[in-house]
Amino acid sequence: MTPERFRKLKNVLSKRQPTLTVLLEEVHKPHNFSAILRSCDAVGVGTAHAVVPRGGLPTYNATSGSAEKWVRVEQHASVLEAVEGLQARGFQVLATHLSERAVDYRTLDYTRPTCVLLGAEKWGVSAAAASGADHNVVIPMLGMVQSLNVSVAAATILFEAQRQRLAAGMYDAPSIPFEEFERTLFEWAYP
Amino acid sequence: MTPERFRKLKNVLSKRQPTLTVLLEEVHKPHNFSAILRSCDAVGVGTAHAVVPRGGLPTYNATSGSAEKWVRVEQHASVLEAVEGLQARGFQVLATHLSERAVDYRTLDYTRPTCVLLGAEKWGVSAAAASGADHNVVIPMLGMVQSLNVSVAAATILFEAQRQRLAAGMYDAPSIPFEEFERTLFEWAYP
Ligand SMILES: C[S@@+](CC[C@H](N)C(=O)[O-])C[C@H]1O[C@@H](n2cnc3c(N)ncnc32)[C@H](O)[C@@H]1O
Ligand SMILES: C[S@@+](CC[C@H](N)C(=O)[O-])C[C@H]1O[C@@H](n2cnc3c(N)ncnc32)[C@H](O)[C@@H]1O
Repeated sequence: MTPERFRKLKNVLSKRQPTLTVLLEEVHKPHNFSAILRSCDAVGVGTAHAVVPRGGLPTYNATSGSAEKWVRVEQHASVLEAVEGLQARGFQVLATHLSERAVDYRTLDYTRPTCVLLGAEKWGVSAAAASGADHNVVIPMLGMVQSLNVSVAAATILFEAQRQRLAAGMYDAPSIPFEEFERTLFEWAYP
Repeated sequence: MTPERFRKLKNVLSKRQPTLTVLLEEVHKPHNFSAILRSCDAVGVGTAHAVVPRGGLPTYNATSGSAEKWVRVEQHASVLEAVEGLQARGFQVLATHLSERAVDYRTLDYTRPTCVLLGAEKWGVSAAAASGADHNVVIPMLGMVQSLNVSVAAATILFEAQRQRLAAGMYDAPSIPFEEFERTLFEWAYP
């Protein structure tokens, strides 16, 4: 471990956003799962949530750039339990779901504790989870195709969150608790 | 062809942006290629450009939502020729490439005629193409991972372009030439 590497680890940890996360509802293609974790890492999401599809956590793509090393995945048996658990901890849950009440994703405030709920490749977000969410959000589609790739949708929203949080100075000082910072630094530095 | 379907085709064509495109330099994974075309369609890119990898145009993913039906792909034998050709037609070419001169993608003006140049999964944008481009742009990475998935990077930039163009009213009136509008409408309506 060089001193530069140690500084890099500390710098990245000091930018982690404990109040920003995703919840993946049965996203099952490894290349999508892995692309989403890379985007999470890039915007400072240190813990992602997933309701694991039958067959288990998607195995990672060889070219993932190893985001699984840097982003913890917390597994949940039920999407409704996961949504309610996050809401109980003060998160607004934004379901990416085309419904009557869906709003343009750009109109929301991502400096608040926020979880972006993404759906399965084929089926999307379940109706129950979407109605339990605080908001339904949609990325405007101006063409013929009905939906985006799920990792594309995740990134489009996460980088809007990054934009707002950069503007608000939320990456300027560490925001994870001291104990967690030290523990994670130790795990990263001495695997 | 129902009247609603015909109106939908006309409406989508009236939002097409002939001054916004992408150039894919040897992107070779079908799921990435297909995800990029879906994002193109959603932001109004009617023609995409590609330097085709050895082995030919990536075959499309079955779950692509058929973006290949709605987005034309123009093939080029050489990336430098493609870059120069677009510049000769007044496009600024933005290479997504981490270099000394790279700027945050959000600082640029996407209401100008713009082509976003994206690189191969493994190798990225070639040095020659990056130095021939008008700007080098980068999406800020605040984590450990070095790069994003290419379809994620494409979408992140294209939806910033969409945001700027929506704000500038560029989707409010048709901008493709009348003959092209009529010809494409005919092709779409009677395939
Ligand atoms: C391929 S889509 C699912 C399509 C499914 N047939 C549906 O109607 O929901 C997979 C996931 O990508 C995300 N997604 C796709 N397009 C989106 C858009 N325009 N806005 C927000 N999220 C989107 C959502 O999380 C969605 O559940
Ligand atoms: C997996 S990356 C290529 C990585 C390659 N090793 C390199 O250093 O360029 C594939 C493509 O995604 C795009 N890309 C990935 N991360 C990006 C970022 N942070 N900003 C802009 N474009 C990015 C670029 O088009 C890049 O060529």
